[in-house]
Amino acid sequence: MKKPFPFSAIVGQEQMKQAMVLTAIDPGIGGVLVFGDRGTGKSTAVRALAALLPLIKAVEGCPVNSARPEDCPEWAHVSSTTLIERPTPVVDLPLGVTEDRVVGALDIERALTRGEKAFEPGLLARANRGYLYIDEVNLLEDHIVDLLLDVAQSGENVVEREGLSIRHPARFVLVGSGNPEEGELRPQLLDRFGLSVEVRSPRDVETRVEVITRRDAYDADHDAFMEKWGAEDMQLRGRILGARAALPQLKTPNTVLHDCAALCIALGSDGLRGELTLLRAARAQAAFEGAEAVGRSHLRSVATMALSHRLRRDPLDEAGSVSRVERCVAEVLP
Amino acid sequence: MKKPFPFSAIVGQEQMKQAMVLTAIDPGIGGVLVFGDRGTGKSTAVRALAALLPLIKAVEGCPVNSARPEDCPEWAHVSSTTLIERPTPVVDLPLGVTEDRVVGALDIERALTRGEKAFEPGLLARANRGYLYIDEVNLLEDHIVDLLLDVAQSGENVVEREGLSIRHPARFVLVGSGNPEEGELRPQLLDRFGLSVEVRSPRDVETRVEVITRRDAYDADHDAFMEKWGAEDMQLRGRILGARAALPQLKTPNTVLHDCAALCIALGSDGLRGELTLLRAARAQAAFEGAEAVGRSHLRSVATMALSHRLRRDPLDEAGSVSRVERCVAEVLP
Amino acid sequence: MKKPFPFSAIVGQEQMKQAMVLTAIDPGIGGVLVFGDRGTGKSTAVRALAALLPLIKAVEGCPVNSARPEDCPEWAHVSSTTLIERPTPVVDLPLGVTEDRVVGALDIERALTRGEKAFEPGLLARANRGYLYIDEVNLLEDHIVDLLLDVAQSGENVVEREGLSIRHPARFVLVGSGNPEEGELRPQLLDRFGLSVEVRSPRDVETRVEVITRRDAYDADHDAFMEKWGAEDMQLRGRILGARAALPQLKTPNTVLHDCAALCIALGSDGLRGELTLLRAARAQAAFEGAEAVGRSHLRSVATMALSHRLRRDPLDEAGSVSRVERCVAEVLP
Amino acid sequence: MKKPFPFSAIVGQEQMKQAMVLTAIDPGIGGVLVFGDRGTGKSTAVRALAALLPLIKAVEGCPVNSARPEDCPEWAHVSSTTLIERPTPVVDLPLGVTEDRVVGALDIERALTRGEKAFEPGLLARANRGYLYIDEVNLLEDHIVDLLLDVAQSGENVVEREGLSIRHPARFVLVGSGNPEEGELRPQLLDRFGLSVEVRSPRDVETRVEVITRRDAYDADHDAFMEKWGAEDMQLRGRILGARAALPQLKTPNTVLHDCAALCIALGSDGLRGELTLLRAARAQAAFEGAEAVGRSHLRSVATMALSHRLRRDPLDEAGSVSRVERCVAEVLP
Amino acid sequence: MKKPFPFSAIVGQEQMKQAMVLTAIDPGIGGVLVFGDRGTGKSTAVRALAALLPLIKAVEGCPVNSARPEDCPEWAHVSSTTLIERPTPVVDLPLGVTEDRVVGALDIERALTRGEKAFEPGLLARANRGYLYIDEVNLLEDHIVDLLLDVAQSGENVVEREGLSIRHPARFVLVGSGNPEEGELRPQLLDRFGLSVEVRSPRDVETRVEVITRRDAYDADHDAFMEKWGAEDMQLRGRILGARAALPQLKTPNTVLHDCAALCIALGSDGLRGELTLLRAARAQAAFEGAEAVGRSHLRSVATMALSHRLRRDPLDEAGSVSRVERCVAEVLP
Amino acid sequence: MKKPFPFSAIVGQEQMKQAMVLTAIDPGIGGVLVFGDRGTGKSTAVRALAALLPLIKAVEGCPVNSARPEDCPEWAHVSSTTLIERPTPVVDLPLGVTEDRVVGALDIERALTRGEKAFEPGLLARANRGYLYIDEVNLLEDHIVDLLLDVAQSGENVVEREGLSIRHPARFVLVGSGNPEEGELRPQLLDRFGLSVEVRSPRDVETRVEVITRRDAYDADHDAFMEKWGAEDMQLRGRILGARAALPQLKTPNTVLHDCAALCIALGSDGLRGELTLLRAARAQAAFEGAEAVGRSHLRSVATMALSHRLRRDPLDEAGSVSRVERCVAEVLP
Repeated sequence: MKKPFPFSAIVGQEQMKQAMVLTAIDPGIGGVLVFGDRGTGKSTAVRALAALLPLIKAVEGCPVNSARPEDCPEWAHVSSTTLIERPTPVVDLPLGVTEDRVVGALDIERALTRGEKAFEPGLLARANRGYLYIDEVNLLEDHIVDLLLDVAQSGENVVEREGLSIRHPARFVLVGSGNPEEGELRPQLLDRFGLSVEVRSPRDVETRVEVITRRDAYDADHDAFMEKWGAEDMQLRGRILGARAALPQLKTPNTVLHDCAALCIALGSDGLRGELTLLRAARAQAAFEGAEAVGRSHLRSVATMALSHRLRRDPLDEAGSVSRVERCVAEVLP
Repeated sequence: MKKPFPFSAIVGQEQMKQAMVLTAIDPGIGGVLVFGDRGTGKSTAVRALAALLPLIKAVEGCPVNSARPEDCPEWAHVSSTTLIERPTPVVDLPLGVTEDRVVGALDIERALTRGEKAFEPGLLARANRGYLYIDEVNLLEDHIVDLLLDVAQSGENVVEREGLSIRHPARFVLVGSGNPEEGELRPQLLDRFGLSVEVRSPRDVETRVEVITRRDAYDADHDAFMEKWGAEDMQLRGRILGARAALPQLKTPNTVLHDCAALCIALGSDGLRGELTLLRAARAQAAFEGAEAVGRSHLRSVATMALSHRLRRDPLDEAGSVSRVERCVAEVLP
Repeated sequence: MKKPFPFSAIVGQEQMKQAMVLTAIDPGIGGVLVFGDRGTGKSTAVRALAALLPLIKAVEGCPVNSARPEDCPEWAHVSSTTLIERPTPVVDLPLGVTEDRVVGALDIERALTRGEKAFEPGLLARANRGYLYIDEVNLLEDHIVDLLLDVAQSGENVVEREGLSIRHPARFVLVGSGNPEEGELRPQLLDRFGLSVEVRSPRDVETRVEVITRRDAYDADHDAFMEKWGAEDMQLRGRILGARAALPQLKTPNTVLHDCAALCIALGSDGLRGELTLLRAARAQAAFEGAEAVGRSHLRSVATMALSHRLRRDPLDEAGSVSRVERCVAEVLP
Repeated sequence: MKKPFPFSAIVGQEQMKQAMVLTAIDPGIGGVLVFGDRGTGKSTAVRALAALLPLIKAVEGCPVNSARPEDCPEWAHVSSTTLIERPTPVVDLPLGVTEDRVVGALDIERALTRGEKAFEPGLLARANRGYLYIDEVNLLEDHIVDLLLDVAQSGENVVEREGLSIRHPARFVLVGSGNPEEGELRPQLLDRFGLSVEVRSPRDVETRVEVITRRDAYDADHDAFMEKWGAEDMQLRGRILGARAALPQLKTPNTVLHDCAALCIALGSDGLRGELTLLRAARAQAAFEGAEAVGRSHLRSVATMALSHRLRRDPLDEAGSVSRVERCVAEVLP
Repeated sequence: MKKPFPFSAIVGQEQMKQAMVLTAIDPGIGGVLVFGDRGTGKSTAVRALAALLPLIKAVEGCPVNSARPEDCPEWAHVSSTTLIERPTPVVDLPLGVTEDRVVGALDIERALTRGEKAFEPGLLARANRGYLYIDEVNLLEDHIVDLLLDVAQSGENVVEREGLSIRHPARFVLVGSGNPEEGELRPQLLDRFGLSVEVRSPRDVETRVEVITRRDAYDADHDAFMEKWGAEDMQLRGRILGARAALPQLKTPNTVLHDCAALCIALGSDGLRGELTLLRAARAQAAFEGAEAVGRSHLRSVATMALSHRLRRDPLDEAGSVSRVERCVAEVLP
Repeated sequence: MKKPFPFSAIVGQEQMKQAMVLTAIDPGIGGVLVFGDRGTGKSTAVRALAALLPLIKAVEGCPVNSARPEDCPEWAHVSSTTLIERPTPVVDLPLGVTEDRVVGALDIERALTRGEKAFEPGLLARANRGYLYIDEVNLLEDHIVDLLLDVAQSGENVVEREGLSIRHPARFVLVGSGNPEEGELRPQLLDRFGLSVEVRSPRDVETRVEVITRRDAYDADHDAFMEKWGAEDMQLRGRILGARAALPQLKTPNTVLHDCAALCIALGSDGLRGELTLLRAARAQAAFEGAEAVGRSHLRSVATMALSHRLRRDPLDEAGSVSRVERCVAEVLP
């Protein structure tokens, strides 16, 4: 098995990479939606993220990757107290997945053969402290998306049925990819994702040759390629860890709050998730840049990804939500 | 786990808060429908209500929170007679919930393994003496909504199937949230909710900054924030308890009955639930204000929330049911 | 638990009350359909009927309320011979009810655990000698409605499946309520209901104040209210019992038969259920009025409720079936 | 339980009665379709037929009413050799019936509890040597109708599934009623019914009074009424038995065959079932009339019922298939 | 039970009879589709074919009618080595048949009661070495039709599921009847049938009288009728056996191959199944006629039935595929 | 059982044969989509491929054809270490196949009877190191196609459900055939196939006669035919093995990378799979031709099959994607 393609070796797609880095710094920003055609490296990027992210320490055998033995759920009967290092989990949600598979379910076999009511944890358990990736989120059933967003927000998976009453931590960042031409998410669901970005195929020859060349090198001379880019990945990982540490001390001037509110009002975005996410993402960006306080430049840097999926559709200008945000930023935060 | 955001710390949204307070004073007013876009704090408000409401005393281990051991249902085999204090229950109805899960069902596992016909209580049992919250009620199947409204009205859950014949108290206030743009409730169902309110995102910078600031303080300095606003919540709780006590002595002048009827006839509302709810809500409002008798000012204060969801749709003026009520109040109860 | 609202205390809605009284005098008239908006007291009226109707004597423990031990179905293994008095059963058909639940079914649990083929009676068993109420009959599946009408007509419930061969008496009056704006019954089903009435909210202030006042008195001073109106209910019960006794002696002049036929031909009603029901309802009305023979005035009094749901739809005058009957009565039975 | 309304006491509806009598004389004519509105006495007539038809002798306990012990199916393990007299079976097909219920199925309970593969016969077994009645045949699923027609034609029910390999005689006349306004049968199915008739409500006062009067007498003075009309029924039964005996000797002139073919060609009826049924029905009619040979008058008497449901639809003259046959008969068989 | 109507006694319908005879000579030609209205004797013809075809010798008790004990499938545990003569199997596919029933399935009962994994063969097993008849093939689900065509082509039924891995010979000719007015087969499926013919009701009186007369004789004097026509059937059977024997020696001049290709190109038929079937059918026809080599006359004789169902639909001339083939044959093979 | 028709004996269809040969040289090119009408020999070609491809050595009894005992999956409990030669597996995906059947599932029977949780491998296991063929891929459910493409790309089948946690190698080339007139694949799925080709019936007489002649020879004189063409197949097999060996040494000049990118940009193809596949297919082609470096001629030779299914639909020129690629190649790579 080859190692995944390194995050740093991805050519272009800066905004997608930025969004992922921000959620790595502050998972509380919420999920990321990546719009764009197939073949633009969306799933490659998510798999690359797994290698980029810092290792976590987790209790051996704990189904939810808990950091301390006392945090392992009781129903798992974890006896080990050894901590092992393991990669940040990145869980893939298969198309057509059932709710049982996601939240966990009664272990029917054990119930039938041994008469015990045992819980078989689902994908949410495995994704704790990591990422949950949904390819083509617009093809998933709404109630599953809703459930995922609910758990992502509350950080806890509660299963109460078939006489089971189970709860376990389930903190993760939801990453969804989708092609807007293939059917759309309900506005309610869009709003619950923290950030959104669009990816496009590069349109110049040099960039595309660069992509092919790197891909070719990755296939043909795997080890050398991984060594070179792995080093870059480690550097990025270092910056992320630094930003995580700096975040709590970061200052938030009152003018920035006003900027957030003024921008969202100007855009006419419903609800207040817009400014809350905008502020949070700007702070992560500021921390990543090593700034001491969040400022207008950080707001500008993340405004599009924090707000463009929250605009009401303008029937006269369907595809223009990104440029509407950009225009508004230019006016309100000159 | 952080405590829920305090009810008193919610910025604006006065009508939603008023409606919730009124049902806390007189649960017989019936359920509350909250219309509005996502992100306007509807579910935050319901969760906040849980902390605001007075604690209840309930028999330890009783699945329906009965106040006296003799009121615990027989099938629950409650042996304890100890009373414990616990928060007013606020039960969340998950999207895609099944009828079994709501009303309770035969405990299949026990039936199979031990040959006993045991009842596994559902969400209605847990909601007794409290609140039942349905997010996006317009996405729930009609027959579940109907069932919930039936039980909410009768105060009793009756399960007769699979050879079970179970009944238990199920007195609760139904709170539903919905986005009218996402599909509508049948008029029959609308009419069975007591009150309805609309919530909107605030449109001025100062209010929105206030919202972000409070949210930020809640996240950043949780304990201090809870201390400050918890005190306000306790004060409000006191007023609610006072109003509950005063309600039976409150006078209802005959002119008020005439006002109710005249207003409903002027609005052309079908059925008589309109005036009955209007009267009841106005009384709760009067009690909350410490008045000795209900009067026109109280009717005016609650008319919109008691009546606007009961109007026949006017195809020429779809969104105007609230202002139609306001106009009519101004004319009939000058 | 409060007692149901008294039948006599219902304000207005004369035709609905008349229809119910007629079926109490002669259940052979067939079911009653009550059309109208929610909130007009339809279900209140049905529940009130339960208290109004004479008590019946039934064998203790008999699942079909038989009057004599030898009439209890064999499969019920009723050993008691004691007769007990009990209210006329009024059974509520829940929305979304299954056929099994209605007709009864194999008791799966007993079959599995004890290897016995036992019958678990359904709602039809319980409704024997009483009323079966379906709220929003137009939302029920056609084949269930059809089944109910079949049993109501034959007076017997026959269950033959899963190796069971069960029959038991099931004589009851079907009362259905519906809102014609919510979907319609097939003409075939309409025709099988004996009577139909429409209820509307009162349109004058005094009546509505009276409704609120009585409702308020019922809630506020329950016992006094029940005492006052219970006496009126008992008087009405007496008249019903008297009319039942007088019915077999009532004379039917030949001219009345001609009137029935002429009226139905003039209305162009299909089939012959129209005149048969008209005649039967007119006789019950005559008996209720204490007349010795049925006459034109009785026909006129019941013509609308016996015939208006049997007219072919007139696309030019959809809502006018009631007034078409009235016009025709005025012409044919001047 | 009252006896069914006597066949002879049915007022009017001559063609429906004629069709039923013809199938009683020669069941090989095939099923009868009765078109018409509800309330015109279709099901009354079928039930009346049961009482009219001669008693049959059948082996006691034989599930298919066999006339001789050796004809009872093996799987039924019939040990008795006693013959008992019983009415010609008239089996009612309930709406929403399943295929299992119709053809019979594995007795699951016995299979589970005793490990035996036993056959539980269905409605087809019970209908052997009698009638099978389907109310509203147009509401039944096509594959069930097809199955019924297949068995009716072959006279045998073959069940091969779930490891069962069962066959038993199932000779019966299929009687279906339907309202053409409620959805139509596929032409393929129409063609497989032998005869079709239309029934309508009488349109003159005298006839309708006669109907009410008889119905009234039937209800009011049941025994006297049954005595009077039962005698007429017995007379009709005698004529049917006589016609049955005479049928094999009846002559069929060659000119009659030519008449049959010429009429069907003139009508453009597809397939050859038209003339075969026409001939067969005319013979039964001739035998009923006591004729020695079948002739043109008999063809004329049955042409409409044998042919009108086999015409291709004429979009310009939808309702006119009956009069198209009549016109054609007048021309071709003057 | 009467014997089936003799094949030779069928009046007219020459093309249908020819197609059936050709597949009896060379089953490799593939299935036959018979288009036409009900009542034209399609199913009569298939049943008649059963009696016409030569008896086969098959091992006693072998579920797939194998000719030699060593060819019986292992899973059938056939112990007998006796050969018995039996009619060529003609298996009827019931409407609404399931895939399990067709291909065979795990014998659930044996699995449950005896813990053995036994195979219960389906209709394909029974049809081996014979015919499989589908009435109204256009009403069957596409995937079943596809499955039948797959097996018919490969001559083997492979069942791999539920842990079973079963294969058995399943060589049969598929005969499907259908009414093109009732829904069409997908072109992909049409193409996989070898031949297609259309049947129509005769349009002249003499032929129809002949049909009725024969049918009448068949019913009235069964034995004499069977004797007369059975002899003709035996003669036809002899010719079929002769043609089978002659087929391998038949010569195929190169010009005939060119004719096949030229005709198909001229018709624009997709794929190459057209000419392969055309050639094969022409050879069988030549062998039936006793020719030494296949020639143009044989191509002409079978061209319509081999090609007309393979033409692309011409929207301007929907019903004309038969005459399009005829026209083309006249031009290309003058 | 006859051997499959030899690959070399297929007349024409050069592009389809080329595509299959290329994937035999480098399976990493990805799947092949074959568009065209039925009857053009698509499935014949896939079956022929099986015989053409080199034998593989696989551990005896290993369900995934592993080359070394240590690579057999643990759950298979393979004890043998013997290597046996076997044909490259070519697995056929039946229409209507379930996901269980494809990926494998819990062996229910073993679970029930022996209480063991055993894995029953699916078609993906069997296809390892070979080909998976889907006839009419456009009729398969999207999520199955997606799953197949996922596994084909990752080379591993991961099954995690019902308490199983199984993974096994599943490297195969997916070959799908489809008729674009019968419904289309989603662009997302199209893009994930490596190559696409169109097949058409030959339009000249000589070619078609050649096809019939070869087919005839194959049927009539099987052994001689196989001997002759089998030798040609062996020669082709040799070339494929040679190309496989040469591939790693093949040079890729930078100008070729630029050509790839320039061509894809000119075509406006989304994503980067276009140039990656184009390059890979051109290399395989170069190796097959014995070249030392890949060049423009190789790009030109494979451009159509690598790119034409990746173009956005041009509503004005639906069928022209192939010629659009050809035109573009002529311009960009003159």
